[in-house]
Amino acid sequence: MVLNLDLINKLLRGDKRTCARMITKIENNEKEAEDILKGIYEHTGNAHIIGITGPPGGGKSTLTYRLSKELSNQGKKVGIIAIDPTSPFTGGSILGDRIRMNKLATDPNVFIRSMGTRGHLGGLSKATHGGIKVFDAYGCDYIFVETVGVGQSEVDIVKTADTVVMVMVPGLGDDIQAIKAGIMEIADIFAINKSDLEGSERTTREIRMMVEMGNEEKKPPILNVIANQNEGIRELIEEIHKHKEYLISTGKLEEKRLERIRSEIITLIEDEIKSRIFNDKDVYKLLDNVLKDVYNKELDPYTAKDKLFKAII
Amino acid sequence: MVLNLDLINKLLRGDKRTCARMITKIENNEKEAEDILKGIYEHTGNAHIIGITGPPGGGKSTLTYRLSKELSNQGKKVGIIAIDPTSPFTGGSILGDRIRMNKLATDPNVFIRSMGTRGHLGGLSKATHGGIKVFDAYGCDYIFVETVGVGQSEVDIVKTADTVVMVMVPGLGDDIQAIKAGIMEIADIFAINKSDLEGSERTTREIRMMVEMGNEEKKPPILNVIANQNEGIRELIEEIHKHKEYLISTGKLEEKRLERIRSEIITLIEDEIKSRIFNDKDVYKLLDNVLKDVYNKELDPYTAKDKLFKAII
Repeated sequence: MVLNLDLINKLLRGDKRTCARMITKIENNEKEAEDILKGIYEHTGNAHIIGITGPPGGGKSTLTYRLSKELSNQGKKVGIIAIDPTSPFTGGSILGDRIRMNKLATDPNVFIRSMGTRGHLGGLSKATHGGIKVFDAYGCDYIFVETVGVGQSEVDIVKTADTVVMVMVPGLGDDIQAIKAGIMEIADIFAINKSDLEGSERTTREIRMMVEMGNEEKKPPILNVIANQNEGIRELIEEIHKHKEYLISTGKLEEKRLERIRSEIITLIEDEIKSRIFNDKDVYKLLDNVLKDVYNKELDPYTAKDKLFKAII
Repeated sequence: MVLNLDLINKLLRGDKRTCARMITKIENNEKEAEDILKGIYEHTGNAHIIGITGPPGGGKSTLTYRLSKELSNQGKKVGIIAIDPTSPFTGGSILGDRIRMNKLATDPNVFIRSMGTRGHLGGLSKATHGGIKVFDAYGCDYIFVETVGVGQSEVDIVKTADTVVMVMVPGLGDDIQAIKAGIMEIADIFAINKSDLEGSERTTREIRMMVEMGNEEKKPPILNVIANQNEGIRELIEEIHKHKEYLISTGKLEEKRLERIRSEIITLIEDEIKSRIFNDKDVYKLLDNVLKDVYNKELDPYTAKDKLFKAII
C-alpha cells in the first residue's frame, strides 16, 4: 500500500508517467489496480466526460483532435480514451487518423490512450471506467471517450458520458428514419461533420426534423462543423459547455452520474463473480467433464449449465 | 411441456412459422425458451455454421445474399442470422442491403433473421446461439452469421462459427500491416469483394503476403469475388466446403465445436448469475442505498462492490 500511496501522490501532482503506468495496470487488470482506483476515487468527479460517437467514417478522431487542441490552447488539460473501433479489422483512413492524433502526444496538456476492443482481461468497460478515473484524478478538465457507434459493449460505454456528441456526415439519405429511435436516445449534441460535402444541407434538415419530432425535454442542438479545416470547433465547445450547465441547473448531472455509478458497480460485481468462478479449478474441471457429454448429445448445454450452477452455489 | 413438444415437432417437420415464433421467444428471453432449446438440442449439429465478417462497407450482406441464393438453387436450406451492425446508428447503404436481403424472404429455402445488437435481455450472444440451434433443428444445411467486424461481443460471436469468411475490399492500403495479427487469428477464408475496383490486385497481393508470412498450419485461401455481379460465388462455396472437409479430416471440427460449447455454457452461467442477482429485490435495494454514498465520495465503487458481493454470497 506504501507503493500505491506514493503512486497516487505522484498522480495527483500531475506526473504524466505515473498516469500512463496506472492506466496500463488497469488495462492489464493487475491486482494493484483496484487499490489504486480505491485510493484515487475521492479525487475524481471534476472532469467533464464527453462521449464522441457516430457511424464509421464520420471523422470522429479528427474532431476529437481539434476539440482537444482548442481546449489545450485555452489552457485546459485534456484526456482522450480512444476505444479502437476497428480492431481486429480496420478500414480506410483509421491509421492515418491515429498518426494525426499522435501529434497531440507532444502537447503537454493532452493525454491520449488508445484501448483495443479486445484482450481486456477485466472487460473493456471496466478498463474504460478505470482510465477515466485516472485521467480525472490526474487533473484533466475534459475527458473524451471516442468510440465507433457499433457494438453492444461500445455503445453501453459511451452512454455513460456526461455529454454525448453524435458525429454525423452528409449522405445518410433515407436511412435516417430507420435510425431515429436509437440515436435520439443517447445524443446530447449533433455535430454534422464534413459539412462542406454535397448533401450536407439535406442531412442537417433531416436531423432537425427528427429532433423536432422527438419528445425529448431538451432538443439536442445541431451544429455544422468541418473538423479537418478547424471550422465550428469553438462553437461545438460552446455547446458542450451549455449542455453541462443545463445538466447542473436541472439536477440531471447528479442523475446521470448516479446511473453511471450504478452501471459501474454492476459491471464490477459481474466481473468479480466471473473471475471467482472461472479461476476455480474445480469448476473448470467440472466444465471440462460435461463438455464431451454435451458434444455427444448425452446432455444439452442448458442442463449442463444447471448442473454447473448447482456445483458453484 | 405439452405445448413445447408440439412446437418442437412442428419445427422438426419444417414449419417456418414455428421457427420464427421460437426465435422470437429466444430473443425475448421468455421462460419457455430454455425448455425449447433443451428439447431441440439433440436434433442439432447437422448445419454448417459460417461466419461472414469484415470491415464496414465491404458488402457482407450482398455476399451473404448471393451465397444463400446459390445454395438455395442447389436445393439446400439456408438460415441467415444478421447481427444488425449499425444499430443504433447506421451508415450509407445498409437499408438498401436490407431491402435486397428481403427479396430472399420469398424463397422457401431461405430463412432470414435480423437481430439488433441492443435490447436483448439475455444478451446478444445467447440469442444468437439459440437462433442457430433453432435453424439447425429446423433442418438448415447452412447457417450464415453475418456481423460487422467491430465490437467485442460481435467478434466473440463470429469466432465460434465452423468457418469464418473474412470479407475484405480494395483500398485497405498500408493499414493492412496494422491489422495483421487480429485478422489471421480468426479468418479461415479471405474473400476480396468488389474485385473490379481499383487497387484490388494490390490488396490481394498484400493479403497473400500476410497469409504467407503467418505460421498457421493451414493457410487461408484468398478469393476474388464481385458479389453484386454474382462473380466468384460458386468458387467461394467450393472453398467453404473444402474448409469443412479439412476440419472433419483433421479432427478440428470436434475441437472447434467443443470450444463453442464451452463458450456457450460459460455465457449461460454468467447470464443465470446475473439474472438471479439483479432480479433479487434485496440486492437492488442495497445497490440503491450505496449509490448515494458513492456519489458523495463517502464510499468508492470498489468497496461498494465488495459490500454488495458479501451480501450476495
